[in-house]
Amino acid sequence: MIIDCAVYEDGKRRPGELALEEAYEAAFAEHAFVWIGLYEPDEAEFDSVRREFNLHELAVEDAIIAHERPKLEVYDDSLFVVLKTARYIEADDSVEFGEIMLFIGPQFVVAVRHKPASALGGVRRQIESRPDLLRFGPAAVLYAILDRVVDDYQPVIDGLDEDIKEVETDVFSHEGGNPAERIYQLKREVIEFHQATAPLTEPLDRLAQGLVPGVHGAMGEYFRDIRDHLLRVVETVSGFRELLTSILQANLTQVALQQNEVAMRQNADMRKISAWVAIVAVPTMIAGIYGMNFEYMPELTWTFGYPLALSAMAVACIVLYRAFRRNGWL
Amino acid sequence: MIIDCAVYEDGKRRPGELALEEAYEAAFAEHAFVWIGLYEPDEAEFDSVRREFNLHELAVEDAIIAHERPKLEVYDDSLFVVLKTARYIEADDSVEFGEIMLFIGPQFVVAVRHKPASALGGVRRQIESRPDLLRFGPAAVLYAILDRVVDDYQPVIDGLDEDIKEVETDVFSHEGGNPAERIYQLKREVIEFHQATAPLTEPLDRLAQGLVPGVHGAMGEYFRDIRDHLLRVVETVSGFRELLTSILQANLTQVALQQNEVAMRQNADMRKISAWVAIVAVPTMIAGIYGMNFEYMPELTWTFGYPLALSAMAVACIVLYRAFRRNGWL
Amino acid sequence: MIIDCAVYEDGKRRPGELALEEAYEAAFAEHAFVWIGLYEPDEAEFDSVRREFNLHELAVEDAIIAHERPKLEVYDDSLFVVLKTARYIEADDSVEFGEIMLFIGPQFVVAVRHKPASALGGVRRQIESRPDLLRFGPAAVLYAILDRVVDDYQPVIDGLDEDIKEVETDVFSHEGGNPAERIYQLKREVIEFHQATAPLTEPLDRLAQGLVPGVHGAMGEYFRDIRDHLLRVVETVSGFRELLTSILQANLTQVALQQNEVAMRQNADMRKISAWVAIVAVPTMIAGIYGMNFEYMPELTWTFGYPLALSAMAVACIVLYRAFRRNGWL
Amino acid sequence: MIIDCAVYEDGKRRPGELALEEAYEAAFAEHAFVWIGLYEPDEAEFDSVRREFNLHELAVEDAIIAHERPKLEVYDDSLFVVLKTARYIEADDSVEFGEIMLFIGPQFVVAVRHKPASALGGVRRQIESRPDLLRFGPAAVLYAILDRVVDDYQPVIDGLDEDIKEVETDVFSHEGGNPAERIYQLKREVIEFHQATAPLTEPLDRLAQGLVPGVHGAMGEYFRDIRDHLLRVVETVSGFRELLTSILQANLTQVALQQNEVAMRQNADMRKISAWVAIVAVPTMIAGIYGMNFEYMPELTWTFGYPLALSAMAVACIVLYRAFRRNGWL
Amino acid sequence: MIIDCAVYEDGKRRPGELALEEAYEAAFAEHAFVWIGLYEPDEAEFDSVRREFNLHELAVEDAIIAHERPKLEVYDDSLFVVLKTARYIEADDSVEFGEIMLFIGPQFVVAVRHKPASALGGVRRQIESRPDLLRFGPAAVLYAILDRVVDDYQPVIDGLDEDIKEVETDVFSHEGGNPAERIYQLKREVIEFHQATAPLTEPLDRLAQGLVPGVHGAMGEYFRDIRDHLLRVVETVSGFRELLTSILQANLTQVALQQNEVAMRQNADMRKISAWVAIVAVPTMIAGIYGMNFEYMPELTWTFGYPLALSAMAVACIVLYRAFRRNGWL
Repeated sequence: MIIDCAVYEDGKRRPGELALEEAYEAAFAEHAFVWIGLYEPDEAEFDSVRREFNLHELAVEDAIIAHERPKLEVYDDSLFVVLKTARYIEADDSVEFGEIMLFIGPQFVVAVRHKPASALGGVRRQIESRPDLLRFGPAAVLYAILDRVVDDYQPVIDGLDEDIKEVETDVFSHEGGNPAERIYQLKREVIEFHQATAPLTEPLDRLAQGLVPGVHGAMGEYFRDIRDHLLRVVETVSGFRELLTSILQANLTQVALQQNEVAMRQNADMRKISAWVAIVAVPTMIAGIYGMNFEYMPELTWTFGYPLALSAMAVACIVLYRAFRRNGWL
Repeated sequence: MIIDCAVYEDGKRRPGELALEEAYEAAFAEHAFVWIGLYEPDEAEFDSVRREFNLHELAVEDAIIAHERPKLEVYDDSLFVVLKTARYIEADDSVEFGEIMLFIGPQFVVAVRHKPASALGGVRRQIESRPDLLRFGPAAVLYAILDRVVDDYQPVIDGLDEDIKEVETDVFSHEGGNPAERIYQLKREVIEFHQATAPLTEPLDRLAQGLVPGVHGAMGEYFRDIRDHLLRVVETVSGFRELLTSILQANLTQVALQQNEVAMRQNADMRKISAWVAIVAVPTMIAGIYGMNFEYMPELTWTFGYPLALSAMAVACIVLYRAFRRNGWL
Repeated sequence: MIIDCAVYEDGKRRPGELALEEAYEAAFAEHAFVWIGLYEPDEAEFDSVRREFNLHELAVEDAIIAHERPKLEVYDDSLFVVLKTARYIEADDSVEFGEIMLFIGPQFVVAVRHKPASALGGVRRQIESRPDLLRFGPAAVLYAILDRVVDDYQPVIDGLDEDIKEVETDVFSHEGGNPAERIYQLKREVIEFHQATAPLTEPLDRLAQGLVPGVHGAMGEYFRDIRDHLLRVVETVSGFRELLTSILQANLTQVALQQNEVAMRQNADMRKISAWVAIVAVPTMIAGIYGMNFEYMPELTWTFGYPLALSAMAVACIVLYRAFRRNGWL
Repeated sequence: MIIDCAVYEDGKRRPGELALEEAYEAAFAEHAFVWIGLYEPDEAEFDSVRREFNLHELAVEDAIIAHERPKLEVYDDSLFVVLKTARYIEADDSVEFGEIMLFIGPQFVVAVRHKPASALGGVRRQIESRPDLLRFGPAAVLYAILDRVVDDYQPVIDGLDEDIKEVETDVFSHEGGNPAERIYQLKREVIEFHQATAPLTEPLDRLAQGLVPGVHGAMGEYFRDIRDHLLRVVETVSGFRELLTSILQANLTQVALQQNEVAMRQNADMRKISAWVAIVAVPTMIAGIYGMNFEYMPELTWTFGYPLALSAMAVACIVLYRAFRRNGWL
Repeated sequence: MIIDCAVYEDGKRRPGELALEEAYEAAFAEHAFVWIGLYEPDEAEFDSVRREFNLHELAVEDAIIAHERPKLEVYDDSLFVVLKTARYIEADDSVEFGEIMLFIGPQFVVAVRHKPASALGGVRRQIESRPDLLRFGPAAVLYAILDRVVDDYQPVIDGLDEDIKEVETDVFSHEGGNPAERIYQLKREVIEFHQATAPLTEPLDRLAQGLVPGVHGAMGEYFRDIRDHLLRVVETVSGFRELLTSILQANLTQVALQQNEVAMRQNADMRKISAWVAIVAVPTMIAGIYGMNFEYMPELTWTFGYPLALSAMAVACIVLYRAFRRNGWL
């Protein structure tokens, strides 16, 4: 689907709607370039674009299949750029990745967006308000899109940071949860995010140093700024990785601790019950003795035999109770 | 065993079957080269090829013994390339590695395939449909084979990814399994896969930058494309390694957790049984007391002595039962 | 807010207070430069400065938003430097980070300080006492500020070292604490501190090697000295990371050990109680036997039946007691 | 001890035994070089050699003390090479390291072998059968010895691989062993092996690229071949390190698992015994009740009192037994 | 404190004691240099030296404060070198670090030693016996001191190796110790030792390659020798780090194992005691039954009632005993 198609002359957008064929022609005017935005184009649409701008077969193949790693390829006089967009989904604390492919020639930009990648309409409006940059031609569009994509990594960093803090609270609270699965899922996301962002540093280095043909040297400072933001993202993500490894380890300690606390309480209960059983066993034994049927048991005939026996029982129980108490068993 | 042997002239295959000797001659025609496919060749077959194309003794030795690491060696005017093929075996979730050795000269390609490596017939047909590439000579064949070998890594990545997801499910399900062995075996496979793929990046870098003699500079873009795919594979594999380390750790936590849950349930059972024994011990003691044979036990002669004793027992039991209940022991 | 604004001529501060506009003019005198200190400037103040010295829009944007990584950017004839200050807060054993941004041109220094960063008044007085350095112009101010910022990392290192030693004592004392959370928080701080300091090495390398335009080569030695101090900080921090990983592991061992000691003591208690119950059960059984009502029980009629029975009970108890004692159960 | 001493002329060994002094002379003939093999030489023997060939004092010192790391040093017109040999001792699954030092000049090779290093007689015979290589002079001997030393690493790799597989079997079998010590000892050996092999890559790189003076460029391919074999060894060893770390972790899980299984079985036993005690306690209590001596206990006079009491006991036992059974306690 | 102060001319020490002022003069003679050894100099002493040789203020500052990382700085025509000495203290198995600072100019060496660093008198005597080296001037002194400092690392390596072996024995012995704290302290020392030694490799590389001004190229071989020894130290230390990480993990396994063995023995005891209680409970119940007072209990009147009851009890006990025995409970 063609989203937008416009010709830029001397840093300004030529007004009015534009058919694809008109755009092709316009792209050959001096000081002009055309920016075509495609969204999951079908074969036919893409084929027309491909033939018009003579895009390299390998780049085209990559653009259709997607699932590439971020990269910047130079083909003779045109560039092929693959970008990974990232979005933090609040609903399920997950990160969603999209892809934007750019074909950049001396007088054209073809931007191919794949499904979850966010629309570039905002980027277009933003860069259209900067004729000073647009005068640099297609490279200005590359700058604008890169800037947006990298800026959009920040909310993901914030979301992951929030998640890690939640997980920390879980781990160190005394409510006995086990966030091992969540920690692991975060680690997975962080690794994926790293793979989506880190390979972009190398192309940005080349852009910042003005080593990419067709990109005006004066734009180097702009790309350097993006690279710094990207480096911040990459360093933060690498810090996340190390933190998550530590928290997985800390969680093991905490889980062990919490469970052992439960076990100890159970053991203390058992000790208490057993201690009571032991106390009751003593009067039972004494009663058993005076329940024997020997003919000659002098105590049985004493007037105070019964009260004495009861007293003996009571004394035994009290002594035991105190002893157990002293040991901390009751 | 000779699999296929063909001469290519000006990007097209010369029709008809070809004996090895004819191929040797043909290889000296202008704008022509011969592609000989061998499958675990015996000494005699290989010796003829070796002498004809003057292959380097060290390369030949490596090709026969196999078990080399992936590499690209330049010998004067010829190349020796070692590739590791990988195939995911669905049946037992394992990865099988094969080897392909290529001897590439100005006018010949000798491809030696070792056992589990998949056949190159498909590659041959594919590249034969691209006369524009075949015109670059033997380097086009190198491209075609490299492209296939690296593309074939993707299903292995998919299979390993699938396995890791299964293992995750195992670890975090509450069914009490212990997939430690499987995690470890995956780690082993991932390390082996890394060793089979990562060393290939360096030769591909050299090919992409046009630093390999005998490879036309215009092919650089094609090798760059393969290198990007390979880098994606290597990065994913390195992510797998880190994930598997984390999951081994998480598994320890989960195993500890699940087992402690069992232990706690057992402890709770013990506590319950002991509590009942404790309850029963009290009426037993009371009964023991009134079973004593003292002559002077006034209660024994009371009309309501027996019912009172029974009531005392019942009350004691009820009181204990309630107390234990309150403590959560019953 | 404008903190201080002074003109330096031939290494000396021109006396008297100075309005911003006067400073602008003064900055164009020969052998003179102006140093303007801003503290969280509002838009208006900053805008005047920006226009006067023609600061680059990207640098200005970064300076207002803050939260940048440490860096040194070269824009035509001016530098933009971002520094992270760090302060150890004794009260809650935490580390607080601030930011200082410097815009350095041939004849001006604009220092923008963000909130928790400490005041630069002391730095100003210190460098003013070194006219030999001030003669190098704005680079001397850069040196003075960098020197202070890096020197201020040392108390943080000391504080963290102290914390780690406290945590070690906690882990290996036998008081049964679990400093897992504190270890983790230290790890977090150490990672943050690393991210604030390590990226500064690269700019300092460039300064030390005299690769930064506008910085006199003779100042290289001074920047080299700062770089060495920074490297010491970075290496110590990296040692802290490894130590904290080890101590988290050691803590798991210690926690396991301490808890198992508790569990073993509980188990030993249970064994003791059960052993006593077992001892008491034996006379109870004997008493039960002689409490049976059989008509023909010869022992019951013996004169010494009762004492014999009591003796049997006593002997059984003593034998059992000794046996249990021997086994270490009592 | 002098093991062998021979002069090689034009790629062939001059026949006959040779005294050391004759060898010295012979070494100055054109197209000739002498190869002296020493085995733990005493001071006197070595001193003669040292003076004759003017060996560097530092190299000589290193050669006598041994315990050096693998290296290749260039001294003016001679080389000093230190190699670590490794041998797998089947008897106790250990790895034994030896040392070979080579002094290589334009017309001499002095090979000093330290104790556990294997004899070089085989290498001598092998290279003597290759006059084409021997013509390159002493560098051919360097090649031959390096080739042998690196080839000899392979059996060590195989032995360690075998050991690791045995340890895996131990860890994941259900026989309850704890191979922690063996895993650790393997790790120790693997680290030592890495230290013996990895530093050799750098000298081999230099040899392969023809950067070592006195080594003919045409030999580069031969050294490149050795380097590839060495890289394979180093990569495999590094894989072993990671595997052993994982298996130590997996072992902890397995040990925990196996022991908890034992503990659970013990707990289940306790529960069973306690349940039986609880069952027996109930008829004991009933019997106790009807053993009381109250004058007015109507049941005692019933004709069917006794059978009813017995039935009550039996019923209580059966009910309890069923309940416990249902709970899985019996 | 001035330890020693001597002038060296043409490789030989000028005889006799020398006051500082004389030394200054002597240092300007041709082919002569002065070597001044200071031990924790006070301000005044140092100030005289500083002014005489025109030492750089930053170097002087570092030399007084100490606590620098090892480094070699080039200031115009002089060098400033910081070395960390290490000594293994047998008494408490700890490592003690000292510092030596060297100021090296074309005609002077000033060696500043800080407290725990060992005296350099031996180094002085050693190098004085090598006029061939001393002729190279102050660089020879640098060589001699570096050689000694690096040689002195070896006993530390040996001591740490010994400690690690002791800890291994502790971990894998079956005496139930927990060397976690000692392992951790070793890790700490090893990290500190690494920080004291590893940064020295870079200066030694520069010295070995002859890239340091004022050091004669012919001395490169000597510094290369030291660098190799240092690399050996650094590699061994890095092996220690990995070993200690593994042993901490192995210790966790062993501690868990040993404690569980204790717990299992306790559990087995409990099971045994409970089993005996269960056995005794059965005759107690039988006795209870025949102790009931029912009027119609035919067994009571049987002549053999009593012996039969006793037999029933005995049989019950024997049967239970055998069953428990069979289950392994007794």
